[in-house]
Amino acid sequence: MPLDATNNPRLRSFVAVPPDSHFSIQNLPYGVFRPKTGGALRIGVAIGEQVLDLTELAHSGAFDALSFDARTVFSAGRLNEFMGLGATAWSPLRSIVSRLLRDDVADLKENQRLRDASLVALTSVELVLPVEIGDYTDFYSSREHATNVGVMFRGKENALLPNWLHIPIGYHGRSSSIVVSGTPVRRPLGQTMQDGAPGPSFGASRQLDFELEMGFFIGPGNELGSAVGVERAHEQIFGLALVNDWSARDIQKWEYQPLGPFLAKNFATSLSPWIVPLQALEPFRVAGPVQEPQPLPYLRQRGEQNFDVRLEVDLKSARMERSVTISETNMRFLYWSMAQQLAHHTVGGCNLRTGDLLASGTISGPTPDTRGSMLELSWKGTEPVRLNDDESRSFLEDGDELTLTGWAQGDGYRVGFGEVRGTVLPAREVKQR
Amino acid sequence: MPLDATNNPRLRSFVAVPPDSHFSIQNLPYGVFRPKTGGALRIGVAIGEQVLDLTELAHSGAFDALSFDARTVFSAGRLNEFMGLGATAWSPLRSIVSRLLRDDVADLKENQRLRDASLVALTSVELVLPVEIGDYTDFYSSREHATNVGVMFRGKENALLPNWLHIPIGYHGRSSSIVVSGTPVRRPLGQTMQDGAPGPSFGASRQLDFELEMGFFIGPGNELGSAVGVERAHEQIFGLALVNDWSARDIQKWEYQPLGPFLAKNFATSLSPWIVPLQALEPFRVAGPVQEPQPLPYLRQRGEQNFDVRLEVDLKSARMERSVTISETNMRFLYWSMAQQLAHHTVGGCNLRTGDLLASGTISGPTPDTRGSMLELSWKGTEPVRLNDDESRSFLEDGDELTLTGWAQGDGYRVGFGEVRGTVLPAREVKQR
Repeated sequence: MPLDATNNPRLRSFVAVPPDSHFSIQNLPYGVFRPKTGGALRIGVAIGEQVLDLTELAHSGAFDALSFDARTVFSAGRLNEFMGLGATAWSPLRSIVSRLLRDDVADLKENQRLRDASLVALTSVELVLPVEIGDYTDFYSSREHATNVGVMFRGKENALLPNWLHIPIGYHGRSSSIVVSGTPVRRPLGQTMQDGAPGPSFGASRQLDFELEMGFFIGPGNELGSAVGVERAHEQIFGLALVNDWSARDIQKWEYQPLGPFLAKNFATSLSPWIVPLQALEPFRVAGPVQEPQPLPYLRQRGEQNFDVRLEVDLKSARMERSVTISETNMRFLYWSMAQQLAHHTVGGCNLRTGDLLASGTISGPTPDTRGSMLELSWKGTEPVRLNDDESRSFLEDGDELTLTGWAQGDGYRVGFGEVRGTVLPAREVKQR
Repeated sequence: MPLDATNNPRLRSFVAVPPDSHFSIQNLPYGVFRPKTGGALRIGVAIGEQVLDLTELAHSGAFDALSFDARTVFSAGRLNEFMGLGATAWSPLRSIVSRLLRDDVADLKENQRLRDASLVALTSVELVLPVEIGDYTDFYSSREHATNVGVMFRGKENALLPNWLHIPIGYHGRSSSIVVSGTPVRRPLGQTMQDGAPGPSFGASRQLDFELEMGFFIGPGNELGSAVGVERAHEQIFGLALVNDWSARDIQKWEYQPLGPFLAKNFATSLSPWIVPLQALEPFRVAGPVQEPQPLPYLRQRGEQNFDVRLEVDLKSARMERSVTISETNMRFLYWSMAQQLAHHTVGGCNLRTGDLLASGTISGPTPDTRGSMLELSWKGTEPVRLNDDESRSFLEDGDELTLTGWAQGDGYRVGFGEVRGTVLPAREVKQR
């Protein structure tokens, strides 16, 4: 795809954007916020350490020239209405916002009254889940992750199951328990089966894990019975966000046969609050891993379908002053692309609806320090991860604060995702009957 | 639970109810309809061959004595608002409706103007999906079904997996592709792997199947991080409906390891349009199968937790004049009860929201003619089901119309579910690239 004017690396905003800020004028991610002083939910775009209030701008008439009713769409308190309009609405809106924020354009820069009304400090707002998510699908698209898990559970010979190189394996996740970054996560209770025990026992999970993933949100969607081809998948991708697919490995191990993970996952899934438009990531397209054997025709794609997004996992225990980085990886390692995930999801006729979330599955790279879950980093607990002189981790402990972050690095600017953060709370007390 | 006045077997309505009608005054199931002449969606209750229009009655003031705003709740065009109110709203509303329909009560019977406005023929309305469904969970609660499938795929020795008798196994289904009875179902395309083939091939499923299930809808729901105990599960069950979980067995076989069924199921799930209140089924409680080994404490239940609901599957091919019954079974055969499914679903902290659907999984009984899927009835295609002198079936063929129906048989009346019906359309044409 051609470089859009809004991705021009020389663009500068009159709003201060430090070079390591995730929210450059080349990014312009969408979110939904409420002023900490209260009031209705508003739609905004992050820029530097500010939020540009699109709800306010819409009411000031800034988007009246557009082909859709921006006053209504940006008063919805969620992004679904805007997402459903498709690229013919996203692209012109993004151009106007980009122009308004430019240092060499006076419209907003020189309008002090409008600046005061529409630019608010990030520190003064509360960010909420930006989308009403209908269905959530989780894929399993990292070959390294699937291989690591396979080696641990089935041995080297049977690491990758026979279908893996032919199908972007995925399953339906739980939508109700998706929470926004910052929401604490309670350690789940559940059944586990200890090796050699006569039967299962019930209690708090002892193998609580995170999974570093990238998710994308569906724009217009497709009708039941129709399919979206790989070459048209980009029209359906509104934008991307970070996902932490919290997992209880001991519960998963006992429950997942034959229908897949259930309670091991549905206690919480955390989402970063800003949705980075696909358009902002266009300059960071790269080729993915070679796909051999060649996939079936409906999954064959042309051009660069992966994205160079650096990813990082930081952990801070209750006793630590500062977090430590326990993994550094990259979205480009994914074997199956978003376009392939989307084409596969719909090829049987399944309909995707506006606001549906599709996540990548754990992103692990080729080296041990690029693994995207504790299960892999500590190799099932056999090689605990050293955090500092005092502490190490096989799995997550109560009080651990986990932060996932990610950004594409441009020349002097970043297109970043902010972060998705969550602290582990102790399990609910078990009532014995 | 005590017998409610609304379940009194001697109650009679002034609306004609033939003895084999599913919609007796003891039933009073909820649905959402639109007059075939057009107009807004309305909430109704089925009685005999009529629909009682609750939206109309609410506006006439019939429910003004209730503690909730019935005029608003019954104007929502879906049942979610009513379902979210819980039993303290459901029970008094049901009492008023039951009273209004009684033969010995004049309020509606003798008010010709109100009768004309609020009673409409079932034949004059279009029934729509009555609930906005957030998440859909499908269980696997029939021991006979799990055993049959296990024998076919893993052999007699490993038929039931080790977790099955300890966990009400379930997985997350696809919410977007749930359709109301009468919606045609297109045969899905997908990947399959033929025995001995060098790689997978792509095309229309050749093993299209149905699954006879019962589903229930969540009322108020629970908060993330909290749990609903078995003994309080009934407070969360608004009502029940029939579910046909269409399945593509050849796609399922190739894709389902290790994360469960995906495209094999998400092309369509059909739902019957009337939701039978749990209250209407109270007189039909029966004991379920003995659970041995005893489940863990959080799954132990007292009293009769199963329901005596007769179930039937009818098939009519494109060439047949009349359908034939291919299976007769009963909901009472289920091993895991709805209360256990609900308690298990939430025990790890997963939140259920108003309108969520939980289905039982295929219901199969102990004898061959009580099996709830074609896979089992034809034993994986090895024993085709004879329909008549001309036709037999291993799996479903294009043009087949499948109808599931079910009812509880009282003394001279039925509490029935109506039907869930769907006709198989040929697969979409495959475009070769």
